[in-house]
Amino acid sequence: MRIAQVAPLYESVPPQLYGGTERVVSFLTEELVRRGHDVTLFAAGDSQTSATLAPGCERALRLNGCTDYMAPHVLLAEHVAQRADDFDVVHFHIGPIHFPLVRRLPSFVHVTTLHGRLDAPELQPLYTEFCDIPLVSISNAQRRPLPQAGWMSTIHHGLPMRLYDFCGKPDDYFAFVGRISPEKRVDRAIAIAKACGRRLRIAAKVDWTDRLYFEDQIRPLLDDPLVEFIGEIGDEEKNEFIGQARALLFPIDWPEPFGLVMIESLACGTPVVAFAGGSVAEVIEHGVTGFVVSSLDAAIEAARTVDAIDRHACRAAFEGRFSAERMAADYVRLYRKLIASASNRVA
Amino acid sequence: MRIAQVAPLYESVPPQLYGGTERVVSFLTEELVRRGHDVTLFAAGDSQTSATLAPGCERALRLNGCTDYMAPHVLLAEHVAQRADDFDVVHFHIGPIHFPLVRRLPSFVHVTTLHGRLDAPELQPLYTEFCDIPLVSISNAQRRPLPQAGWMSTIHHGLPMRLYDFCGKPDDYFAFVGRISPEKRVDRAIAIAKACGRRLRIAAKVDWTDRLYFEDQIRPLLDDPLVEFIGEIGDEEKNEFIGQARALLFPIDWPEPFGLVMIESLACGTPVVAFAGGSVAEVIEHGVTGFVVSSLDAAIEAARTVDAIDRHACRAAFEGRFSAERMAADYVRLYRKLIASASNRVA
Repeated sequence: MRIAQVAPLYESVPPQLYGGTERVVSFLTEELVRRGHDVTLFAAGDSQTSATLAPGCERALRLNGCTDYMAPHVLLAEHVAQRADDFDVVHFHIGPIHFPLVRRLPSFVHVTTLHGRLDAPELQPLYTEFCDIPLVSISNAQRRPLPQAGWMSTIHHGLPMRLYDFCGKPDDYFAFVGRISPEKRVDRAIAIAKACGRRLRIAAKVDWTDRLYFEDQIRPLLDDPLVEFIGEIGDEEKNEFIGQARALLFPIDWPEPFGLVMIESLACGTPVVAFAGGSVAEVIEHGVTGFVVSSLDAAIEAARTVDAIDRHACRAAFEGRFSAERMAADYVRLYRKLIASASNRVA
Repeated sequence: MRIAQVAPLYESVPPQLYGGTERVVSFLTEELVRRGHDVTLFAAGDSQTSATLAPGCERALRLNGCTDYMAPHVLLAEHVAQRADDFDVVHFHIGPIHFPLVRRLPSFVHVTTLHGRLDAPELQPLYTEFCDIPLVSISNAQRRPLPQAGWMSTIHHGLPMRLYDFCGKPDDYFAFVGRISPEKRVDRAIAIAKACGRRLRIAAKVDWTDRLYFEDQIRPLLDDPLVEFIGEIGDEEKNEFIGQARALLFPIDWPEPFGLVMIESLACGTPVVAFAGGSVAEVIEHGVTGFVVSSLDAAIEAARTVDAIDRHACRAAFEGRFSAERMAADYVRLYRKLIASASNRVA
């Protein structure tokens, strides 16, 4: 199959540091190539791929001081449209910017995975208008606010089976991995660790927009012998960082669309103590691969008893449900369905 | 002529407070209606216009806590495209988001005014690709980084003749009006006022992204008996605020695309002491309507001697060169040219 993957240009594919969407696009692309498909990856020019790279811009936007994020994505949509005939299916990961365009390209087979949260009221009229655009959600929870949209499938993210090694003998700390932002609630993670008297190690980036929040709300909490803030980390460090943890704390306070770090944790064999919200209950099996809680007290209790979770069960859940192989197989099935229904329309 | 104006949705048209693009779209729209054209205004639903309002969203995005600015503009582009046949010409003010779409609408007559700065390197490939899209610049300086783009004309902004009254007898202060941001250099305005021993009154908004800059760099400078910070003001207050000033200080440190406040000042009869950059030398006649300087010393000297500028000459320059009437006449001439060349193509 001739497949195009169209990635956002904020980060390279895979990203050098943080960047959930671009990581998933990389995993999917590499797995599709491994399966023998002819894959073209539209992405930032400093991306690394075994597919054919079609550079959407010279270098990834976020780490290179780009000030206008719209312009490169408009150009990207145009480039893809000009090559519409080169592909059997085009898989977009760039939000709604291409919707008016692809609607006007006859016999163009495409699908768009939405990677963000979808509960903002301003999205309602957009997806009512564009209910003919085929979409994939990354969790069932994510799509709930937009029942009118053109959902074809929910396809959970997956990671390459060998990306992270299983770690059976952890050290004695809890881990927090992500962004420092009000919806990720690192303050709750700190409260849980303190209540348990266990160390918390925090690997997180601080976005420019979250700097005030970090300085005002979070930095004062870091001054505690139990708490260690180590900044942003890459994939290599992550395996050890998460794998050595007794549990990953994921005390979110927002409708998490997927939460990649939960399955990274499972891949390492590390159980997850997560607050319910968004995708969490779809990813973590309460009592099997971690605990899904709704209050700080319940989270503290869960963290205290988390050593009872079988780390092998976590790894098994990862291998069974959250591998890149499974994700790619799901997408290929969907691509075939879209191609078949397009040929029926033409015939 | 059946004309559509397509405004950004960040602010209502006209904006309730700050919002240069939406103000200009409002002035242009009202003047086109006054001239007897059949005008449809695509804009936020809380806009006020004598044209036919086509609401692009319920309420303006910025003051109503909207988190996704892309979605409403994608929908707006789609709505305009669906009504392509209803208009003789469509005038976009929403940046490049509609470029791939309008390119694929046959016999659609359109023009886009770019309102922002254009020197970011990521814009180069976009405007090379879309060199067929007809564009208007708001100053000659603005378009300079993109010689390859489809420029049709430079049309300076204009204000309704009666928006501001001439003020011949000012009070004894300098005025600063705008955003508090590094490129607007309110710190320079403060330095100039202090060196002259004259009061400086600052009417400015602080964007969320500039709050750290405001707190760290600017707030300490405000603690001076000569300096008064009064926050964001609307149109009604502006006439008195600027009109009563001896001079407007405009000590920018960036390529200002136009600088609406300079012509607001001229309309009040208030001369402008401005740092050279972007449009400044096109708007201010050195020694006639103010001074264009390149150093702090020169700015201080200019501010000291600014009372020698004839306030009537400032008002006359406004009436001659920067009225909404002149702006609308320029645009109508351009619309006719675009319509004529489109019919030639078809014939």
